Amino acid sequence: MAVQFAERGDKSEIEEGTLLAPKFDDRGLIPVVTTDVGTGEVLMQAWMNQEALARTIELGEAVYWSRSRQEIWHKGATSGHVQVVKELRVDCDQDSIWLRVEQRGGAACHVGYRSCFYRRVHVGVDAPPETRLQFAESAKAFDPDQVYGKK
Amino acid sequence: MAVQFAERGDKSEIEEGTLLAPKFDDRGLIPVVTTDVGTGEVLMQAWMNQEALARTIELGEAVYWSRSRQEIWHKGATSGHVQVVKELRVDCDQDSIWLRVEQRGGAACHVGYRSCFYRRVHVGVDAPPETRLQFAESAKAFDPDQVYGKK
Repeated sequence: MAVQFAERGDKSEIEEGTLLAPKFDDRGLIPVVTTDVGTGEVLMQAWMNQEALARTIELGEAVYWSRSRQEIWHKGATSGHVQVVKELRVDCDQDSIWLRVEQRGGAACHVGYRSCFYRRVHVGVDAPPETRLQFAESAKAFDPDQVYGKK
Repeated sequence: MAVQFAERGDKSEIEEGTLLAPKFDDRGLIPVVTTDVGTGEVLMQAWMNQEALARTIELGEAVYWSRSRQEIWHKGATSGHVQVVKELRVDCDQDSIWLRVEQRGGAACHVGYRSCFYRRVHVGVDAPPETRLQFAESAKAFDPDQVYGKK
C-alpha cells in the first residue's frame, strides 16, 4: 500500500504533532466511529486494520476489517450502500478514528435502519432494574431480505 | 449494582428485541462513542465494563473504564468536565454504545480541545504517502496545566 504511517513517537508528538501514527491493538485493530456528515448522527461503530485504514485514505470510501468474516470489508460492496468519506479524523492518542461520510442508499445498518444505533436505553435514577430498549427509528429504510436475499 | 443486563439471546432477539443484552469483549469491555448533543460532534471514544455501563445508566453521567489506570472513571471527577447523558443508545448487535451528552466545561479532551478528534487526515487519491495531520480546532478550550496541574 502507498500510504505510510509514522512510527509512534513520544506522548507530545502523538498528541500535538502532525504525523499520522495510529495505534493498533493486540489484534491489529483500531476502533472507528462513522457519522453522517449531514445530520451528525452516529451510523455505526466498526474496526480497521492497517490495510483497511490505508485503503480508506487512498480510496476516499470506508473500508473496514470484518471481525466476523476476518477479511477486508469495503462497505457497500454487497448492498451498494458505500460511504463516501468527507472527513477523516484521529483522536488525541491516535488510537481511534472518526469518519464523516455521505451514506449512499440512505442507510448504514444491515438490519435495514439508517443508523445501527436505532434503540435507546432509558437513563437516570428511575431506570428499571431490567432495562428495556425503546426504538428510536420508527421504520426501516430498506428491507434487508431484498438487498441481501433471504437467509 | 441495581441495573440488570439480559442474557444474550439469539440474533433476532439481540437485533430486533427490547432487552438490553450488551456484549463485552474478552477484556470485559464495550466501546463507547460520545457525541455532543447540541452539535453532533464526536467528543471522544472510550470504553465501559459492566459496572461502568450500569453506573452510567443509574447516574445519568458518563462513567467509563480507564484502560491506562485500570479503574472506573467518572469523567469530570478531576476536571469538573462531567458529561450529562441526554440519550444512551445501543447498536444492532449490542456490542457498541452511543452516548449523547451535554459536556460541562465546554471541552472533553485532556489535551484541552473541545473534542479529542481535533486533527484531520487528508483523504483521497492524491493523499501523500507520508500522511500529515491538519488541526481542525484552532485553539484549546482550556489549559490542561491549569486544570490538571503541571506534570
